[in-house]
Order: sequence, then structure tokens, then C-alpha cells
Amino acid sequence: MSESPAGKAAALDAADELAGLRKLFALGEGVYLDGNSLGALPAHVPERVADVVTRQWGELRIRSWDESGWWTAPERIGDRIAPLVGAGPGQVVVGDSTSVNVFKAVVGAVRLCSDPTRTDIVVDATTFPTDGYIAESAARMTGKRLVPVAPSDLPAALGPNTAVALVNHVDYRTGRLHDLPSLTSAIHEAGALAVWDLCHSAGALPVGLDAHEVDLAVGCTYKYLNGGPGSPAYLYVAERHQAAFDSPLPGWNSHTDPFAMTPSFEAAPGATRGRVGTPDILSMLALEAALEVWDGVSIDAVRAKSLALTDFFLECVAAYVPPGRVTSLTPSDHASRGSQVALRCEEAPAVMEKLIARGVVGDLRRPDVLRFGFTPLYVGFGDAERAASALAEVLGA
Amino acid sequence: MSESPAGKAAALDAADELAGLRKLFALGEGVYLDGNSLGALPAHVPERVADVVTRQWGELRIRSWDESGWWTAPERIGDRIAPLVGAGPGQVVVGDSTSVNVFKAVVGAVRLCSDPTRTDIVVDATTFPTDGYIAESAARMTGKRLVPVAPSDLPAALGPNTAVALVNHVDYRTGRLHDLPSLTSAIHEAGALAVWDLCHSAGALPVGLDAHEVDLAVGCTYKYLNGGPGSPAYLYVAERHQAAFDSPLPGWNSHTDPFAMTPSFEAAPGATRGRVGTPDILSMLALEAALEVWDGVSIDAVRAKSLALTDFFLECVAAYVPPGRVTSLTPSDHASRGSQVALRCEEAPAVMEKLIARGVVGDLRRPDVLRFGFTPLYVGFGDAERAASALAEVLGA
Repeated sequence: MSESPAGKAAALDAADELAGLRKLFALGEGVYLDGNSLGALPAHVPERVADVVTRQWGELRIRSWDESGWWTAPERIGDRIAPLVGAGPGQVVVGDSTSVNVFKAVVGAVRLCSDPTRTDIVVDATTFPTDGYIAESAARMTGKRLVPVAPSDLPAALGPNTAVALVNHVDYRTGRLHDLPSLTSAIHEAGALAVWDLCHSAGALPVGLDAHEVDLAVGCTYKYLNGGPGSPAYLYVAERHQAAFDSPLPGWNSHTDPFAMTPSFEAAPGATRGRVGTPDILSMLALEAALEVWDGVSIDAVRAKSLALTDFFLECVAAYVPPGRVTSLTPSDHASRGSQVALRCEEAPAVMEKLIARGVVGDLRRPDVLRFGFTPLYVGFGDAERAASALAEVLGA
Repeated sequence: MSESPAGKAAALDAADELAGLRKLFALGEGVYLDGNSLGALPAHVPERVADVVTRQWGELRIRSWDESGWWTAPERIGDRIAPLVGAGPGQVVVGDSTSVNVFKAVVGAVRLCSDPTRTDIVVDATTFPTDGYIAESAARMTGKRLVPVAPSDLPAALGPNTAVALVNHVDYRTGRLHDLPSLTSAIHEAGALAVWDLCHSAGALPVGLDAHEVDLAVGCTYKYLNGGPGSPAYLYVAERHQAAFDSPLPGWNSHTDPFAMTPSFEAAPGATRGRVGTPDILSMLALEAALEVWDGVSIDAVRAKSLALTDFFLECVAAYVPPGRVTSLTPSDHASRGSQVALRCEEAPAVMEKLIARGVVGDLRRPDVLRFGFTPLYVGFGDAERAASALAEVLGA
């Protein structure tokens, strides 16, 4: 570095076109690098939640299902998320947990596969475990075989037996970004359907679901989308598949006329078909409010800052931390990097504890990975420098 | 009536041992008889939710998963609901919607059935539709046959082919209470498992899950339990079945060591096995706060008041409304009555609209049913008299 990391951080922060967004969040004195686990609170959300509780529930009560737009919230909020993942309107619906949506997506994809003799559901073996557990249940319940493979082996594992492939866009542990366009193409060339888990990419980098002809996708909203603890997940079903999408969880909310309360099920058209039961309105409307911080924000600008932040953090770590104490698991090439840095460190549990005591909050992935998430809406270059400096201090540099 | 209904209402309210609970709720001027659809707001909930949002999420952020007890909320709140449905601790877990829990319970029950040659899932044909839709999906995915029968025909429909029976405790439309002890016995005598839906009974009357040896049960928390719009539902798995309970939705939250993040699934012991993905904390902790109104309340006292309220409402309707304009669908015998009164009325849609305009809020079940829910914690006898009086006025008496 030609100048000190601290000096460079100040210059980078001064030139950061997204720096003004930080004031939209409730952030204290510390450095919060765990927004890839739980996004920070947008400062206007408490007032909005208070209105939902006190006026919409407390005063309007049952009338709010219509008058406060509760009933249509899953589709409305889905359409607010859609541009962040490169989806046109009417294809994303919010509700349930990511795990439940993985089940809908994988079973739905198996049923969309035009060739019933295809036996395999291929799953990214490095995936966040819930996807694998749920895919295994989906395989068991649809009479398919689960084939776990490393993402690098995925193209070779695809073939005439593949019905569906479920892949994570960004590895939750290492922060590796998988190549969604080329893997989706490979899956399609094999005649299979592509289901993507966007938990660690949505809100951090461009996804391009429509452009790359992804079939189905799921994601959570409490990481880079800052929806709050356990805020509802979402399901994307490409428009071309909606008419044939056959959910394994056909609750009354996905009926074409839910208040007719007919004994026979008739699926609603469009994204609504992905709904199940009554939506969790408090969590859902907190998410809706939280999404307002994205107004006017370009996801390309977010991606550019994310890469600059992770580059700069790695640069500071190299400058401050004695060689050999940590090893980056995060790819150095931009095309393979998400928005986090994962450092392998022998003393990881104790190190993370000490970092947190110093106000630098990342998290630990057992047994030996320090994970630092960089959320471009509210993390600055000064934060990255402080975190690296604290890490060096903890490691006794 | 020997005295005027209004005079009698005043006397009944004066003698009501639960009357003091009304002040725990945010209630305006009107008469709210839709607590069987969305319970009223307990007055202390807004402050508690504000703390969850502003301090737990906004300040503690990720630390709240441990420090604010977020991670263990599903079991902790389950144990708070348990005594209201006659369950000992460790058998109820909160999370997901009722529909999703019906899927877990019915598939789980099929897998618990010791005789795999039993082909049938018998379902109450008058059930709230989502139960039927989801049971049909469960049947399809487990290779069973769905057999819908009227609850009165249920005992006759049970036999050597029955694997599971799914029954509603109270019919959402008519308010009829089904005989849980005797139906559960009949289901067991047939060698099948009993799954009960408690949406319209929990919080309104004693259920006795343990005492009557129910196998599995589900219920929502936004009706008589006042948890707020779309607050999470719950799943009961009797302790004797927990070790073999095999959920179709084995998400990472139901893993015995979720943070080990191992590729193979190993189910957690106890009620935790019924969890799936990350819990929706805002909705869940609003529910937890709301449940505090039950401290020291006897469910037997609630039941006694509920029956007195529905008796008195029917008495007022008979006194005020000209004969033939409405017909009660709600059983007159106490043993078959839930906590609502359903009146068939030719002009039901227009009548309910006019009632609501007069501040008497019930709801409509198409095409011709006026539904009035009596939630003993905050509805009084004066409310019942006012509602009947408004109904008579609307009907031109």
C-alpha cells in the first residue's frame, strides 16, 4: 500500500456513493460485520411496526386484512424484492421460512420435469445444510434419488437421469459465488430444472433470475435485505412454469378463491400459487418497511462496493495480521466472490469472542472459520480497516 | 325472560369473575365479536414488540439469538400454550402456519402408523378447507387415499384400513364442537392415529390432549390466543410418539445440533423435532407477550363464561329478532357447542355490512352465514345484548 490503510479507508469512504445510506440504519459505535446473518435495523422500521401493531391490529383489527393491505402483502412484497433478484413482477411471493420454500421449490421442480423417468435430484453438497435435509425429504416423498455433489463437480454429475438441481448461489461458509448463468445453462442442457438458493446473494450482488432463465428460486430476507429476525422467505417461480407449478403445500391462501372455502382445491394463478397459510403479518410488514432503504439504490453499485470492501479488508488483513495466522477461504477472483470474507484460523472460537468484546461483530462457523459479512448499504471502508486492525490485535500482532 | 335482556346483561356482567380481564385489551367503543378470526390486541403488546424491534434487533442484533432467548422461543412459547390445551411440557412447539403444521402432523402420523398396509387418511369433510387440501397432498405424497367423511359418520368410516384421522375440534362455520374424547377413542380402537385441529377451540374451552391420549394436534394462535395477525401456529406431538416422529420438513432448526451444520440430518429429541427453519421472531415474540393475559386464568372458567355468553346471545336474539329471519346453526346443547354462534340469514352479506357500520363486528361465511365469536377474556354480556339488539334493528324489527 502506498499510503496507510487508515488513510486509504478515509479516502474510499469519502468517494463512496452509497455512504449516505448508512444513516438510514440504527448502528451504534461498533463494527457490524454480521449482516450476512442478521441485517441491521433500518431506523424507520420501529415506527412502522408500532403502527401495524397499535393501529392496524389494535384499532382496525379484522378490517386490516383488506384496509391495511394485509391479505395482498405476500405478492406486494414479492414484487418489491423482484427487481433486486432480476425478476419481473408477478413471480415472487413472500412467506414461510427458506426451508419450507426449498421444499415447495424442489418438489414443484420435480413435478415440472417433463420426463418422469429421470431419477435424480442433484444437490450442491456444500450447501447450507437445511437445503440438503429438505431436498432429501423432497426426494424421498417424490420417489427420487438425492445426489450430493461438490459445485465444481456439478456439470459432470448432470445427465439424462437428472430431474432437478438445487444449488446455492453463494456458499454460506466460504463466501464462494457460484456461476449462476453457466450452471443454469448446464442444468438446462441436461434437460433438468434449476433451483437456486439466493440467501447469501440477494441484496449483495446482481442475480438475474429472468435473464438467466432460472426455473425456481428461494431466499431469505433477514440477511442483506434487513427484514428482521426470521422475517419471511420468498419463492420465485418463473412465469413460464406457473400454470403447471404444483405445490406440495396447497394451503387455503393458494386457492384461487380462498373465501369460497370449497372442499376441492383449485390453485390460484401466478405467484399466489406459492402461498400456503395465513401470513405472519408483523414479521412481513416489518420486512416491507425495511425494503424501502432500497429505493433508488442500484444493485450494480452495491456489487461494486461489496467487491471493493472485501478487497480492501483482505488487503488490510494482509498488511496487519502476521503471515500464517489466518488463511482466506474466500476466492480472490471477483467472479467467484460473494459479499463475505471467511478466514480459517486455528483459534477461531476464542478469536471471535475477543473480537466481539472489542465491538467487531462477525461470526464463527465451527470449528475454525471466522466469517465477516460486508453489507454495502451500511458498512464502510473504515469499518473494514478497524476490523482488520482488531483482528491483528487479538492475534497479538 | 323475567327481566329485560339489558337488565339481565348488567347483572351477568356484574357477577362475571373474568370481567376484569377486559381492561387488559385495547378495545374501543364497538362490540368485537370476531375474536374467533383475529383476537384483540392485549394492551401491553405494543411496548413489548417495540423492545424486540428497537433493542433486541436494533441494538443487540445477532447476539439476541442467545441473549434475548430468540433461539429457544418456539419451545418456550409452546410450553406456555401447553396448559391451555391440556398438554404437559415438552410436547408443543410454535412455528410456521397451521397449514404447514397440518402437513407435518398428517405425514408424521402416517409414518407413525405401525401398519404400512393401512391405506386411508380419513378427514373431517366439514373441516376448514386448508386441512382438507393439505391432507390430500399428504395422502398423495405418502401413497395413501384421502377419505372425506362428515364428522357424524366418522366412527362408521373407521376400520382396518384407517391409518390416520384428521378432525377439527370445532367446526369453523357452524361452531359445532366435536367430541374429542370419544372420537379419539374410536380412532384408537380402529388402530389408527388421531390428529386434531384446535384452531377454534384452544383458548375457548378445555381440550385435554394428554388426558384423552391424542396423538398429534395443531392449532393457530391468532384467534382465542390473541397472538396477532398471522402469528405462528403450533404442533403437538405426544411424548410417546416423539422418538419416532419423522417430519416431512426436517429443516436445520430440527437438527439435534443445528450449528454443527453437518450434511446428514439427525433429528433433535422432543418437541424441537417439529421445528423447520428460522422462526419469525417478531410475530413469535408478540405472541409470547400476548399469552401473558392467561396468567392465573382457568380454562374451565373461560368455558363456563363462553357457554353463558352464547346462551345469552341466543336468548337475546330470540327475544329481539322476529321469528324466521335467522336460524341458528350452532348446537343448542352445550356439549356440542364451541364459542361462536352462527346464524343463517338470507340477507347475510348486507346484514353483516350494516352491523359493522353500527360497530358490531362479526364476520360472514358465504353465502348466508353470520358468524359471531365470543371470546370470554374480553367480551361481556352487555356486548352480547348490544349485538342482538343491533341485529334486530338491521333486520327491521
